[in-house]
Amino acid sequence: MKHPLRQHIEELIELTNEEFAFILSHFESTTKRKHQYILQEGEIASKEYWVVKGCLKSYFFDEHGKEHILQFGMENWWITDYESFVKQTTSKINIDCIEDCELLYISYENREKLTKEMHKMERFWAKKSKYGRIALQNRILSLLKNSSKERYELLLEQYPQLFQRVPKKLIASYLGVSRETLSRLNN
Amino acid sequence: MKHPLRQHIEELIELTNEEFAFILSHFESTTKRKHQYILQEGEIASKEYWVVKGCLKSYFFDEHGKEHILQFGMENWWITDYESFVKQTTSKINIDCIEDCELLYISYENREKLTKEMHKMERFWAKKSKYGRIALQNRILSLLKNSSKERYELLLEQYPQLFQRVPKKLIASYLGVSRETLSRLNN
Repeated sequence: MKHPLRQHIEELIELTNEEFAFILSHFESTTKRKHQYILQEGEIASKEYWVVKGCLKSYFFDEHGKEHILQFGMENWWITDYESFVKQTTSKINIDCIEDCELLYISYENREKLTKEMHKMERFWAKKSKYGRIALQNRILSLLKNSSKERYELLLEQYPQLFQRVPKKLIASYLGVSRETLSRLNN
Repeated sequence: MKHPLRQHIEELIELTNEEFAFILSHFESTTKRKHQYILQEGEIASKEYWVVKGCLKSYFFDEHGKEHILQFGMENWWITDYESFVKQTTSKINIDCIEDCELLYISYENREKLTKEMHKMERFWAKKSKYGRIALQNRILSLLKNSSKERYELLLEQYPQLFQRVPKKLIASYLGVSRETLSRLNN
């Protein structure tokens, strides 16, 4: 059976066995329990994670101490504080596990090395980055344009399994609505 | 004097004369007058534009016919409907000139060809895409977290020249506030 990371990369880029072995040699693996964190505000994001199994959230607090969810991460998703990782500056966000997690990660240095040495991986991450940017653009369109009910329905349509795996109050925090509003939308 | 596009690319990637000539051979130039469009909703974005001179806006209408600004574009900025361009699907947005514009553009096919043939340009656009993604992430953080006054001040700090060049009602539409609110913030 193919390695799940190889399956994931080969959705966009074909690889030989040797190429995948070379890529994988740049990654390490780790496991985290529910509630453990992989990044805290004020740290520099030194790793980008790929989720083998589990679910995580990236979030930040506003000045009133209210939590806002920026992103969830599940199987086959990449997660880090993208700004902190790319610019190697201190992070404004936190990333915690909301389930027990199996993760692969690549360090900033290894990712730079790999993309410089291997045009195919530059191409892979360029494509992932494009799709990430499109998802963010659509979230902005949606925040500017859609009602909370419409945002809820879009999320349910795109990521139905989130609603099984993630507590309601986190969904509310992602959508930028109160838990009471979410309960009404849910019915 | 160096070509402005070369100066722009060399902020991230060093180029030889031959390399830049090869890159430039993939671009064409055009001029547009104020109020002309370069993309309309329902079309497929077949080109990515680089602004030599002038100012543009990308925007969409919600179901109440209200205009929302997604992005402005000025000198040295890239502008297209990123989703439509990358996926070659029909666009949800419009892009118009708000000043007379001199533009360079690259077609989808030429951009694909150039990034495949030249690792340096893959690397350049990967970096631009990363920064674009970071800007969008920060806009989402700001929409979730900041008051309209804070969003106004952030925009003023980041892009002071926008306030000289762009009509107030467009700034209000970008910030997602009414023109009256903007007038209050302005004082």
